Amino acid sequence: RRGKMAKLTQLIDNEVFRAYATYTAIVLLKMMLMSLITAYFRVTRKAFVNPEDTATFGKGESAKKYLRTDPDVERVRRGHLNDLENIVPFVGIGLLYALSGPELSSALLHFRIFTGARIFHTFAYLIPLPQPGRGLSWAIGYSVTFSMAYNVLKTLWLL
Amino acid sequence: RRGKMAKLTQLIDNEVFRAYATYTAIVLLKMMLMSLITAYFRVTRKAFVNPEDTATFGKGESAKKYLRTDPDVERVRRGHLNDLENIVPFVGIGLLYALSGPELSSALLHFRIFTGARIFHTFAYLIPLPQPGRGLSWAIGYSVTFSMAYNVLKTLWLL
Amino acid sequence: RRGKMAKLTQLIDNEVFRAYATYTAIVLLKMMLMSLITAYFRVTRKAFVNPEDTATFGKGESAKKYLRTDPDVERVRRGHLNDLENIVPFVGIGLLYALSGPELSSALLHFRIFTGARIFHTFAYLIPLPQPGRGLSWAIGYSVTFSMAYNVLKTLWLL
Repeated sequence: RRGKMAKLTQLIDNEVFRAYATYTAIVLLKMMLMSLITAYFRVTRKAFVNPEDTATFGKGESAKKYLRTDPDVERVRRGHLNDLENIVPFVGIGLLYALSGPELSSALLHFRIFTGARIFHTFAYLIPLPQPGRGLSWAIGYSVTFSMAYNVLKTLWLL
Repeated sequence: RRGKMAKLTQLIDNEVFRAYATYTAIVLLKMMLMSLITAYFRVTRKAFVNPEDTATFGKGESAKKYLRTDPDVERVRRGHLNDLENIVPFVGIGLLYALSGPELSSALLHFRIFTGARIFHTFAYLIPLPQPGRGLSWAIGYSVTFSMAYNVLKTLWLL
Repeated sequence: RRGKMAKLTQLIDNEVFRAYATYTAIVLLKMMLMSLITAYFRVTRKAFVNPEDTATFGKGESAKKYLRTDPDVERVRRGHLNDLENIVPFVGIGLLYALSGPELSSALLHFRIFTGARIFHTFAYLIPLPQPGRGLSWAIGYSVTFSMAYNVLKTLWLL
């Protein structure tokens, strides 16, 4: 048992994998934060989608007026979906990239730029900042994931 | 070849990783089930979104009336999206957590509470149960993932 | 340091894991492509959802007419969400499956059928092809993921 444990934890001892784990945890926590922001706007804007969620605001017809969409709620939800569309490929391709044996400096560069770009993207979406702020931060994160995928496929096919 | 295989399967022989694999497979299968429930409600409620999907119900104008939203279909779809938003972080952070060398008992506690909370969440959403049933089960799953992320970052930064 | 690196890269040297990495990178890149197709249709159809995105097309009232939904944009977005719902389980369950020590030929069969089915699904959705083309390709990908999950749980519980 002890021996197997030791071997398993070699993965988490590897510097590139530690970097991957750190930045993956950060961007996934950032994505999870969108749920809390959505809940905050739903409660403060009184804009719900499920009838059972409005029960605390009144019964019957008086509660029905809270079943509505709100621009701020929808904006956070779009940011959340954009996170899913971009952070899922980062987590999946990033794992393969971390296991493909890149230089630590290259790996850190990829992970840090992606994480920074996605945090900026969230601010750009929620404030909102004028374009092309949000578009550029999206494109930077997208390019980082594409670069990692390119490195993975190059390692798999050419080595 | 044989030697490499043996080393690779050490991961699946590790008890914590086996627990992670079991509960990850279960929650991902549960999430996949939402697609079947959506399809079931789309067919029984005759509520479709793509024109080509209504062709079996008639041609031209007579089929157009089936291009509509249905409250039951939309409810399942919201449950499915909520699964994506919560199960994706669990799978990603859970993998890092499993590799960070937690106690088996702690790991099982995390995985089992999350899995139970998400199964309850699905029933609470689809029946639907009165609040705060669904809200609480969502918060429990969310907290478990947050706790695993905290443990991962603590392991990475302090050890 | 060198020794740990060597051990880490054993994972990427394993033939089944290499196959998993290759097809996972391909389907995740395919999913990422949906973002570019959405952006293409948003710009060519002039159909946006965020007020700040229409600023380049005019100011005030003249730009508001571009805040609208377009059937082609919505179609790509549905395809993208369907990818998330199906490719996320493939990536998660596929990793566990690759680590559960399957025969290389079985693994390649699973990965190749899934990848082919999802690429066909995208064409079927975007052209669009008449049903049951899209439905069948969805069902094939779904079945492959289910088969991998079955193999994972069988390995975990019976060995």
